[in-house]
Amino acid sequence: VAVGDELLLGTTVDTNGAWLGMELAELGVPVLARHTVGDRVEEIARGIREGLERADLVVVTGGLGPTHDDVTREAAAGLLEAPLRLDPELESRLRGRWRSRGLPFPETNLRQAMVPSGAELLANPLGTAPGLLLSAGGGRIVILLPGIPREMRGIWNGAVVPLLRERWGGRLSRLHYRVLHTTGIPESRLAELVEPLFGMEVPRGVEVAFLPRITGVDLRLSAAEGREEGASRLLDRAEGALREVAGRWLFQAASGDLVDAVAQALKRAGASLVTAESCTGGLVAKRLTDRPGSSSWYCGGIVAYDNRVKVRELGVPEALIREHGAVSREVAEAMVRGAAERFQVEAAVSVTGVAGPGGGSPEKPVGTVWYAAQVGDTVRSRVETFPGDRVDVRERSAQAVLALLLRTLEGGEVPTPPTGGAW
Amino acid sequence: VAVGDELLLGTTVDTNGAWLGMELAELGVPVLARHTVGDRVEEIARGIREGLERADLVVVTGGLGPTHDDVTREAAAGLLEAPLRLDPELESRLRGRWRSRGLPFPETNLRQAMVPSGAELLANPLGTAPGLLLSAGGGRIVILLPGIPREMRGIWNGAVVPLLRERWGGRLSRLHYRVLHTTGIPESRLAELVEPLFGMEVPRGVEVAFLPRITGVDLRLSAAEGREEGASRLLDRAEGALREVAGRWLFQAASGDLVDAVAQALKRAGASLVTAESCTGGLVAKRLTDRPGSSSWYCGGIVAYDNRVKVRELGVPEALIREHGAVSREVAEAMVRGAAERFQVEAAVSVTGVAGPGGGSPEKPVGTVWYAAQVGDTVRSRVETFPGDRVDVRERSAQAVLALLLRTLEGGEVPTPPTGGAW
Repeated sequence: VAVGDELLLGTTVDTNGAWLGMELAELGVPVLARHTVGDRVEEIARGIREGLERADLVVVTGGLGPTHDDVTREAAAGLLEAPLRLDPELESRLRGRWRSRGLPFPETNLRQAMVPSGAELLANPLGTAPGLLLSAGGGRIVILLPGIPREMRGIWNGAVVPLLRERWGGRLSRLHYRVLHTTGIPESRLAELVEPLFGMEVPRGVEVAFLPRITGVDLRLSAAEGREEGASRLLDRAEGALREVAGRWLFQAASGDLVDAVAQALKRAGASLVTAESCTGGLVAKRLTDRPGSSSWYCGGIVAYDNRVKVRELGVPEALIREHGAVSREVAEAMVRGAAERFQVEAAVSVTGVAGPGGGSPEKPVGTVWYAAQVGDTVRSRVETFPGDRVDVRERSAQAVLALLLRTLEGGEVPTPPTGGAW
Repeated sequence: VAVGDELLLGTTVDTNGAWLGMELAELGVPVLARHTVGDRVEEIARGIREGLERADLVVVTGGLGPTHDDVTREAAAGLLEAPLRLDPELESRLRGRWRSRGLPFPETNLRQAMVPSGAELLANPLGTAPGLLLSAGGGRIVILLPGIPREMRGIWNGAVVPLLRERWGGRLSRLHYRVLHTTGIPESRLAELVEPLFGMEVPRGVEVAFLPRITGVDLRLSAAEGREEGASRLLDRAEGALREVAGRWLFQAASGDLVDAVAQALKRAGASLVTAESCTGGLVAKRLTDRPGSSSWYCGGIVAYDNRVKVRELGVPEALIREHGAVSREVAEAMVRGAAERFQVEAAVSVTGVAGPGGGSPEKPVGTVWYAAQVGDTVRSRVETFPGDRVDVRERSAQAVLALLLRTLEGGEVPTPPTGGAW
């Protein structure tokens, strides 16, 4: 239960829920649902009550501060019939804190020393409001935590996890998971390849989730410990099977960012990279230089947005542009060769396309992009018709040319672009 | 109702809920609660049902994709007793989309053409799954939207808002508001200038909210209709007063993006722009070319990440780099002059700095950035020490050099950078 008008109004994005979700997943505690409610006693009580009807544990974040709209204590106390009482030790600690700063104690802050009767205090190393643990009967637990992420995490790690391990040790499992990153294949086509393996090559006990992003689809594999076969063995088998059918679209990067895979490959090859961009207009360079340390494998590039820049700065023959158009295999390859030669480096990429919304034609509709990668003497080029708006086309183009560079650096097979479709 | 195992597991942070919260607040529709549920029919149905018990509108995001775990359609159809049927028009549109790209249609995608009977389709300009609107009796509405934020927003803005205005026009509030965009001044300093005006020059009845972003602070002014003085008159007075004290940091762009103000100024001046970037590594070029039509005022640029590129491509004398270092007024100005001359254009910008995390020194700590703008014969340069991490420093640098270019184009005063301080 996440408490706060600011969460419903949208002026604050709730990150506590996701953080707790990951923590609970690691403990093997499945999260049934998350309720986000406003700063009102009856709404908070409703959230807790609905949780207790179905779950053994309800974690509430927010509403423990000193101001009049912090009413989580009141809501829990009312619901669990555990009237609030002033905790003398908390009170003296609070008063001491203000005294030590030479400040008068604001009496409104006494709210933070009010505790539902029977509640256990969970130490807050980073703030004034402690966490609170209440019993709700039938072994069920309600935990109240502050909404400030740092304080919430401090209490969780320092007090809640040890307490859950102590009480629920036997029931807690460890969910293991790993993520495989793909790029260049639409979600639906990946599903066609992968779903027939479920329950067979991808063994039962392994859950596979598809996480689509504009730059590619991640596959999240998860398995719970405690079966006859260990979770990591199950995951190994599943991963092997998935690599078998989708290996050509997979790349390896702990961050999930293809740029990191490219950086590794460039470093292994001892190569330095240059970029020549038309429709992506600096986006490829920007993504590369987002990474700290990119200067060791990226030297710079040309944004050749205007055709005159392609001619003057990249040595693309004017006749080539006249004959084939700026969006063509010939120009993409001339750009990549011109860039590699001009900068005297081993690796280069180029992109030229119609990002839209204008500029399309029947033969070259919006989304048509030619891109090329050069490594040593090898030049590979591809064309795709990317779906989506200008932002999409540019993002997809940048990702596609980096994938082409990666395969070219690895000397591996370059999958045929699955042009279009529901990416 | 936000749908997705990844939201409960915490591998994805839900940003849709906050975005919708703000949109609904603008329409004057209070959000009672938000439920986050997993990819299971009964959980999604429970979320919708609990919403319908209390609210007139239930918005569901997520679970409309083509894979087996996308079951929002099934949940809504079951709950509202509106059996799914294949929509022939959607089907042919889907099949056509694949055919036009010469690909076989994956039958699993037919899921996306299944529609609860009686549902209205809400056009999705950016993806394959349309939004769906269902009646739940008693004037109550259920709206199903994809979870991908861009698609969700596209449908919301394009189809849902007009529809709600049409049906609920009288019940929606008419809050008037306008947004003033500042850049180059920290929130706390802006507050010091602006807050003393509240209730005086900024009349009562006008609310002013500070919306800080990395590239600047927006001021949102709002006033409700129906007072003795019209809302827009009140807003005019408030805006005038704010311009008086903060005009030097304001810029005008309906989008809120400084690039649009720069584009207008370049078009007015009939000037074409070139970029020369070191630490921003293509980010300035990328931001410029994000805008459709940028080719009419932006011709291209050099990403001079490596010093050798500064020398060879921008004509920066090697001796200058040796003597003053690459991060210096001298090099920033040589870069901007070199770029303008080389590309033979009227306007140019350059950036050279220490984005971090490495590369800092006692005299030039991480965050030190020199940047310059040239318009005709006028060259202006500035140095700042930006706070934050690599991403922050790069974003702030790109914004700062565009602001300098804008002031130089306008021939106006260039505010002294408020170097340091709480940005």
